[in-house]
Amino acid sequence: MRFVCSQSQLSTSLSLCSRAVASRPTHPVLANILFLADQSSQTLSLTAFDLNLGIQVVFPADVTESGAITLPSRLLGDIVSRLPNEDITWTVDKDAIALITCGSGKYQVHGLPIEEFPELPQITEGGQVTYLPVESLLLGLDSSLFATSTDESKRVLTGVHITANSDFLEFAATDGHRLAVIQTKFLEEEDGIPIKLENQTSLEVTIPARAMRELERMLKNQKEGVITVKFDQNQMIFVLANQTLTSRLIDGSYPNYNQLIPKQFERQITLEREVFISALERIGVLADQKNNIVKLSLNATAQEISATVDAPDVATGKESVLAQISGNDLDIAFNVKYLLDGLKALSSKEIQIKINTATSPVILQPIGTVNMTYLIMPVQIRN
Amino acid sequence: MRFVCSQSQLSTSLSLCSRAVASRPTHPVLANILFLADQSSQTLSLTAFDLNLGIQVVFPADVTESGAITLPSRLLGDIVSRLPNEDITWTVDKDAIALITCGSGKYQVHGLPIEEFPELPQITEGGQVTYLPVESLLLGLDSSLFATSTDESKRVLTGVHITANSDFLEFAATDGHRLAVIQTKFLEEEDGIPIKLENQTSLEVTIPARAMRELERMLKNQKEGVITVKFDQNQMIFVLANQTLTSRLIDGSYPNYNQLIPKQFERQITLEREVFISALERIGVLADQKNNIVKLSLNATAQEISATVDAPDVATGKESVLAQISGNDLDIAFNVKYLLDGLKALSSKEIQIKINTATSPVILQPIGTVNMTYLIMPVQIRN
Repeated sequence: MRFVCSQSQLSTSLSLCSRAVASRPTHPVLANILFLADQSSQTLSLTAFDLNLGIQVVFPADVTESGAITLPSRLLGDIVSRLPNEDITWTVDKDAIALITCGSGKYQVHGLPIEEFPELPQITEGGQVTYLPVESLLLGLDSSLFATSTDESKRVLTGVHITANSDFLEFAATDGHRLAVIQTKFLEEEDGIPIKLENQTSLEVTIPARAMRELERMLKNQKEGVITVKFDQNQMIFVLANQTLTSRLIDGSYPNYNQLIPKQFERQITLEREVFISALERIGVLADQKNNIVKLSLNATAQEISATVDAPDVATGKESVLAQISGNDLDIAFNVKYLLDGLKALSSKEIQIKINTATSPVILQPIGTVNMTYLIMPVQIRN
Repeated sequence: MRFVCSQSQLSTSLSLCSRAVASRPTHPVLANILFLADQSSQTLSLTAFDLNLGIQVVFPADVTESGAITLPSRLLGDIVSRLPNEDITWTVDKDAIALITCGSGKYQVHGLPIEEFPELPQITEGGQVTYLPVESLLLGLDSSLFATSTDESKRVLTGVHITANSDFLEFAATDGHRLAVIQTKFLEEEDGIPIKLENQTSLEVTIPARAMRELERMLKNQKEGVITVKFDQNQMIFVLANQTLTSRLIDGSYPNYNQLIPKQFERQITLEREVFISALERIGVLADQKNNIVKLSLNATAQEISATVDAPDVATGKESVLAQISGNDLDIAFNVKYLLDGLKALSSKEIQIKINTATSPVILQPIGTVNMTYLIMPVQIRN
């Protein structure tokens, strides 16, 4: 195995792949990245796979002898990122030792045989292919990922639930305390590629949040166009230019979240999102002393909503913001962190808060073209 | 106590003072900052003191009633930094509760009586005053602080040793493994203020590194001019415009470091600092696997110095850089972190490394006008 590649391309690719390297590998080879040099296509491909998430990057290299080796991700990344931006010459002998030469430095790095490296799962024969617009995916992930559960025992709740049919793409995430749902429409056509197909493959999957965070990172350099998605019962593969992300799907039925969202409301509030966020962030400093609970008081006469926290012997605070309020006055309490998470995810200037009672689900929605709903459960207040 | 002050000035001053608030206060009041509003001078002064380090900041405020209170540093800083950039109105009643109004928010914060707050130490009658150029202080601290010991049991080695007489200011720091010494000259005159006084107070003190890091932070906004320094046997007070930093001095005699620096050398190397740093940073990735030890080999014939690390079963590496070498070839080993610390602290383009044998002290010096010496002990290599 012999090849020459550019330091900058290799460094970028190693750093991308390293995201799928196990942080606490159960087997030494899982701390490694698979290098495949192919003379016929004059490319180098790097693959990392922690048995859940796989990332593969392919880029051009001057390959004079095909071959493969697995090399330690962290050590190699640390060295390569510090090399000068020049060509790096690689020679790998039969003992799985890579000899690396660049500028004034010569390194010999011990690898592990490729036979030990796990194969990336392939899509089974009954698998399907669909195409998703990058812009919709980014909006959907950005508006839902934060609401997934970080508690591994909560299984399906640790993932983002994605539903697609010929009309729309829907993203949902909930950790049991709050729920974020966003619907994005398919575009008719983009760069000549029809996105809304006559027989658009319908899709309903739950994908681990960790994989979706990596997908988001991958897509952020792209921002538009379409991404090819292949999937079967167990796996989903996202293919974007020279990068591929493979993730297992989470098994199990996702909660029927649509039935949790009330259709009618007794109270409706319209207010400026940024102003409300600033006020809640200040009062949140005090709420931090008191289980993060903040009390909101609706005052329809004054057309004002106030947020108060009373942390006995420490401090009390009250912030008031103007709001258009319809319905009767009410005191209702929330975990300020969940409230702020939702307010920050809605991207419009003005938003609506819809409330029934102090103990029933409340929803937040943007005013504008984005079709998003953030549902949050109030916290009971003792008086 | 009643006053109005600007949010931005208060927020900056709180953040400055907070550096001297105890992170784990032994008494509740040590988590607080002392507020003193003075009607006659129309100023607000903030003081924080953790019994070792004290910081005081004074700034203008519209004071309608003088008074004093101590308030929790962290809570207040968190709220004030999030307030809009407007005037903040303060009223303090007799129960040591501060009522704070700004924009849409009203806060009541519980304080503690000022009687419990420790007084900042004053300089005793036999104390002295001197004036130090800010530029020299910054250069001296920047070139020495990194070499102080972080091991609290090492007493005097946890501080920077500063010596001043009518001709020069000298800074020294050592943790027992390496030593940094820098001499900076007094300027003759600056902005009409004579720096080199006929009877310049001589000075020899060891000041805790933590206090000197805060002084460095304080001076970085200033960069030139002079700072007034008052001191006695136990305390040193630095006065700069509206800020005052008070630090205890470390008792005990500082090692006679000048006698550790050899006067003659058998080998001398001149090389480009940045090139050598880059090479050592790459090879340092491997040294990380092996007690941070890197071997340097001097090759006078090739006029080259190479750095090698051999981490068995992981990787080996060799970096070579051009150097002007006088003296015989030699293999010598160092802790790469100590070597890099010194190389980074020297600021010249080219530097000199002076060596006797593989087991005697080595010194690094910049080529240029700065009078600095970095001494490092080699590590023994088994062959």
